[in-house]
Amino acid sequence: MKRILINELKENEISKISGWATTIRDTKYMIFIILKDRSGFIQVSIDKNNNAEIVKKLEGILANSILSFTGKMVKSEYVKQGGKEFLPDDVVVLSSAESLPIDDTANIDTRMDYRWIDLRGEKNNLMLLCQAALVDGMRSYLLSEKFTEIHTPKLIGAASESGSSVFEVKYFDRTAYLAQSPQFYKQMAMASGLERIFEIAPAFRAENSNTNRHTTEFTSFDVEMAYIDSYEDVMDLEEDLLIAGLSNVKNLYGDKIKELFNVDVTVPTKPFPRIKLEDLYQELHKRYNYEIPEFDVGDMNAEAENLTGKFAKEVYGHEFIFVTDFAKTKRAFYHMRKDDVPQGYDLIWKGTEITTGAQREHRFEVLRKQADEKGLGKDVEFYMEFFKYGCPPHGGFAIGVDRLNMLLLELPSLKEEMFIFRGPNRLNP
Amino acid sequence: MKRILINELKENEISKISGWATTIRDTKYMIFIILKDRSGFIQVSIDKNNNAEIVKKLEGILANSILSFTGKMVKSEYVKQGGKEFLPDDVVVLSSAESLPIDDTANIDTRMDYRWIDLRGEKNNLMLLCQAALVDGMRSYLLSEKFTEIHTPKLIGAASESGSSVFEVKYFDRTAYLAQSPQFYKQMAMASGLERIFEIAPAFRAENSNTNRHTTEFTSFDVEMAYIDSYEDVMDLEEDLLIAGLSNVKNLYGDKIKELFNVDVTVPTKPFPRIKLEDLYQELHKRYNYEIPEFDVGDMNAEAENLTGKFAKEVYGHEFIFVTDFAKTKRAFYHMRKDDVPQGYDLIWKGTEITTGAQREHRFEVLRKQADEKGLGKDVEFYMEFFKYGCPPHGGFAIGVDRLNMLLLELPSLKEEMFIFRGPNRLNP
Repeated sequence: MKRILINELKENEISKISGWATTIRDTKYMIFIILKDRSGFIQVSIDKNNNAEIVKKLEGILANSILSFTGKMVKSEYVKQGGKEFLPDDVVVLSSAESLPIDDTANIDTRMDYRWIDLRGEKNNLMLLCQAALVDGMRSYLLSEKFTEIHTPKLIGAASESGSSVFEVKYFDRTAYLAQSPQFYKQMAMASGLERIFEIAPAFRAENSNTNRHTTEFTSFDVEMAYIDSYEDVMDLEEDLLIAGLSNVKNLYGDKIKELFNVDVTVPTKPFPRIKLEDLYQELHKRYNYEIPEFDVGDMNAEAENLTGKFAKEVYGHEFIFVTDFAKTKRAFYHMRKDDVPQGYDLIWKGTEITTGAQREHRFEVLRKQADEKGLGKDVEFYMEFFKYGCPPHGGFAIGVDRLNMLLLELPSLKEEMFIFRGPNRLNP
Repeated sequence: MKRILINELKENEISKISGWATTIRDTKYMIFIILKDRSGFIQVSIDKNNNAEIVKKLEGILANSILSFTGKMVKSEYVKQGGKEFLPDDVVVLSSAESLPIDDTANIDTRMDYRWIDLRGEKNNLMLLCQAALVDGMRSYLLSEKFTEIHTPKLIGAASESGSSVFEVKYFDRTAYLAQSPQFYKQMAMASGLERIFEIAPAFRAENSNTNRHTTEFTSFDVEMAYIDSYEDVMDLEEDLLIAGLSNVKNLYGDKIKELFNVDVTVPTKPFPRIKLEDLYQELHKRYNYEIPEFDVGDMNAEAENLTGKFAKEVYGHEFIFVTDFAKTKRAFYHMRKDDVPQGYDLIWKGTEITTGAQREHRFEVLRKQADEKGLGKDVEFYMEFFKYGCPPHGGFAIGVDRLNMLLLELPSLKEEMFIFRGPNRLNP
């Protein structure tokens, strides 16, 4: 007999269901098992007197074992779990579980040691479904706009982008590096005649920092498009992209997220508020008496982002806000400049930066000058070549999928959000 | 004015178009430019006498430059290119190209040095669109069947699966490894209560071999599902998946593929033929006088795969064929066995293996025995843990996206197929 899902059961019809025994309660006359599959739960009720064979097969079986029951579902007013129960004729023990090494009181690091057990919970399962729904909503939007999905190499020959550190790989008799982002390659796609591309792939950062926002490996959602008039086009696209992603999550799981995470999923309205960095500094000073430290002038920092989120909420009633006009010293050499002002932005959501986007400099001579100015030489030489033989104006952005989902569900850290977290001290499981 | 695509042009309407000048022909009275964007081509015709300004702006401009024209499209019986031409009022040179360092006679290695130029051709552009359409067709099928997309770590703590070699990464004060496949983690997902998952992500192989089929980095399409009855369920799913992928490609690009690659895209019918390895050996001997070498008994090799493709075509009129019942010594320790026979398969398409699939061993004690038998100890310990606390029966498979698209378009090598190829001697661009 083919297994069906618990939510497909029909009253009094002989069926087979399989799932986790989340709890097993053995009483004098009855055994009660709450069986769970991806569709839901049901109570399996076993009358010991009439089911000696089943009782024997379940001897010594602990919760978390995987059981398959044949039998039938009946309505029952005594059962709290949806007014239904399952009366089995037979059972097969598909997998016998030891008693669990962790319980609900375990701290996050212990839970990560046993992540596959930790993920079984209803909240964590929902969290992974949200991540997938976010990505799928955003991707579907891009596909509908005729973007092409590409796959760029993660093993690279030069330690390209400066800034964050890069992992070294022993590559036969030489050294390769792990890509910190597909930045250079998505721009190469623009020089290849693909006008609109995206990639969803791992990115690697060898940052030896242990914060809630950092990980050495994450899923990066990268977008690049050609023939833009300015970075305004990039912001417009990102607005639509996020609206599509959040709409998909809200439609599929909005109620469940409210129930389990007590979070309202808000689909943002267009346009998102936009403010220049200088004006933002003034607002933060005026409203919250916040002064950006000397070191960060021309840029943001975690505290400024946090207050900016507050500002966006209070003044615009919006969870998102674009900040523009950063200092050129604080932005990558490949951002296009106009009157010396980088043509790009950061996007803040709920007080945290989720994207840097920009129009890129596609004119070889200008780009060369900007690279030289930052002291970048040999490492970006292969990249400079992309702009010698014709390349359209273009721009794009990247979103960290994990950070996005963490903010969506208002989780305290990436450790809670990722399928498996990676940090300087964390390479297992 | 907003740029529109060439195929959106309406007769006599003032519009802006932007794209590559694929050719520039400067005659006595006229300049003719073939402008290309992602939607198609058009001839831009400039009467030199009446457009002194445009002529001046185009002075010294070479083919492959990026140009933006405003003007209007008119019908013209003299123009071969679709009976239309574009008469511009103005031009902006968006990017000025140097003369190209390669031409059509360049060999594949030189072309790879300038891959972004190489990719501009109509064939290569179509090749990338096919890759994306294959992936999207397969993914859409899985999403409709309620599979969840996950992202597993590529930085791992142990050199896990034996067999192919693994890249070492300098990970702060220790060594990490690059995942050769998400095998262990997609099985972890099964122990996490996700019943159906897939992942599309890079996989890394430190194989120092230079063949047409090998690369050190490729895009792996991985699928895993729980509560299967046998590996027959896995084969059934893979049939539907490939049918969905190939249908999508055929619908979108079938005619164009025929035109540019002279390949007929065939959507396979269900069920794909299936044959046991022993029976296959006999057929290959009988029909082609082929004897499997001693070393490969219990397994396949490239020549046997090739003849098996021929056999499938001749006997079943099918491009695909499943081969089952391999020797346990030739299969991974985690394949479930029944009467000592691994419960898995290889799938051959057009004479090349594209998948290994199997039901996995989910019973801890049996798995331990099989791991010991292969001499695997400490490296798989973390993985063994996944099966101690309850894990449903499950199975799955992996498909190399690049190999699949290479076979689809009947390209001679992965170098031709990948956005950027990576091999032992190839880390650039």
